[in-house]
Amino acid sequence: MFSPTIQKLIEIFSKFPTVGPRTATRFVFYLLKLSQEEIDKMTSAISKLKESVKQCKLCFNNFEGENDLCSICSNQNRDKSILCVLEKESDLESLENVKRYNGLYFILGGTASSLKKNDMKGLRIEELEERIKNQQEINEVIIATNPTAEGEAVGIYLTKLLKKNSPNTKITQLGRGLPLGGELEYADEETISSALESRR
Amino acid sequence: MFSPTIQKLIEIFSKFPTVGPRTATRFVFYLLKLSQEEIDKMTSAISKLKESVKQCKLCFNNFEGENDLCSICSNQNRDKSILCVLEKESDLESLENVKRYNGLYFILGGTASSLKKNDMKGLRIEELEERIKNQQEINEVIIATNPTAEGEAVGIYLTKLLKKNSPNTKITQLGRGLPLGGELEYADEETISSALESRR
Repeated sequence: MFSPTIQKLIEIFSKFPTVGPRTATRFVFYLLKLSQEEIDKMTSAISKLKESVKQCKLCFNNFEGENDLCSICSNQNRDKSILCVLEKESDLESLENVKRYNGLYFILGGTASSLKKNDMKGLRIEELEERIKNQQEINEVIIATNPTAEGEAVGIYLTKLLKKNSPNTKITQLGRGLPLGGELEYADEETISSALESRR
Repeated sequence: MFSPTIQKLIEIFSKFPTVGPRTATRFVFYLLKLSQEEIDKMTSAISKLKESVKQCKLCFNNFEGENDLCSICSNQNRDKSILCVLEKESDLESLENVKRYNGLYFILGGTASSLKKNDMKGLRIEELEERIKNQQEINEVIIATNPTAEGEAVGIYLTKLLKKNSPNTKITQLGRGLPLGGELEYADEETISSALESRR
């Protein structure tokens, strides 16, 4: 058994995504080798994270600043007639990096393992409907959930729902240039570009 | 680009072993979802780590407590006539878990990418020689470096060195029941046991 403080940190790191006990152990030994200054920098960055990062009132992306809106939602040069619905923040990041999309975004906040009510509860579906209702200039909504089983299911569900409740809005999905089973976050720029182009 | 605080944390986590920018990003979004209480627990555990964990004066393993020696080195029931030399703390952990070894330990503090002086400088080779000289009751030293190219090289170097400088001490190496290219840390208990048995 490792000493109590080490054991406690291993448990904490083991809960990080993709991390098991072995990797968590390596993290702790890595930390033990850092200087006190580096440790202080790390803990203060972690502590600062939650207080300095806000959620945009419109798209729910994370941002820092004085305003209520993130730099994309408050940018007058973005095309307000088109809205892209994404699972999560890093998907937005990937799409922005391609520099081919100039519309606005909406982050669902995850995906659902099934279309059961309980699984869908974590997604901002009511907020999305609200947004489309309030922002009259939107005439196209791109449902850009990931081409995984879960993402596809949520995509089909949302497409149906929005077509019914917002009959005057065009509802599209990203073209299936995306490799099936993959995640937007890991797609290369070419693939994302062609998927954008061939949206249906 | 992510916001500055997020970006900074991504950079910090990217330096963790096995972690690249993608995984570091996932870590940050994981942290954003934690409660303030969980964040506080984490940062205080990280801060506490360096001040509560000491290095044993004899074996250089990490431990917590009032003494100068860890629980293994200060345990009167351990066999002081046999010393096992390991690359790192987690190797010791693996060997202890097998419960087949009752001697003492010495942690080299890593391995060397070559036998050049500069690469070997990080290893506690002088301290090891000192230890063997001071602790007269040692009559066997097991060089248990990992069966990787680096570990083997350091193992051969140490064996030669100790045979020359401590001619009255038996110098052995773990039997090659260990899968080549693997690390002690990831070996199963059976393999470690048989390697211990067949040491040469």
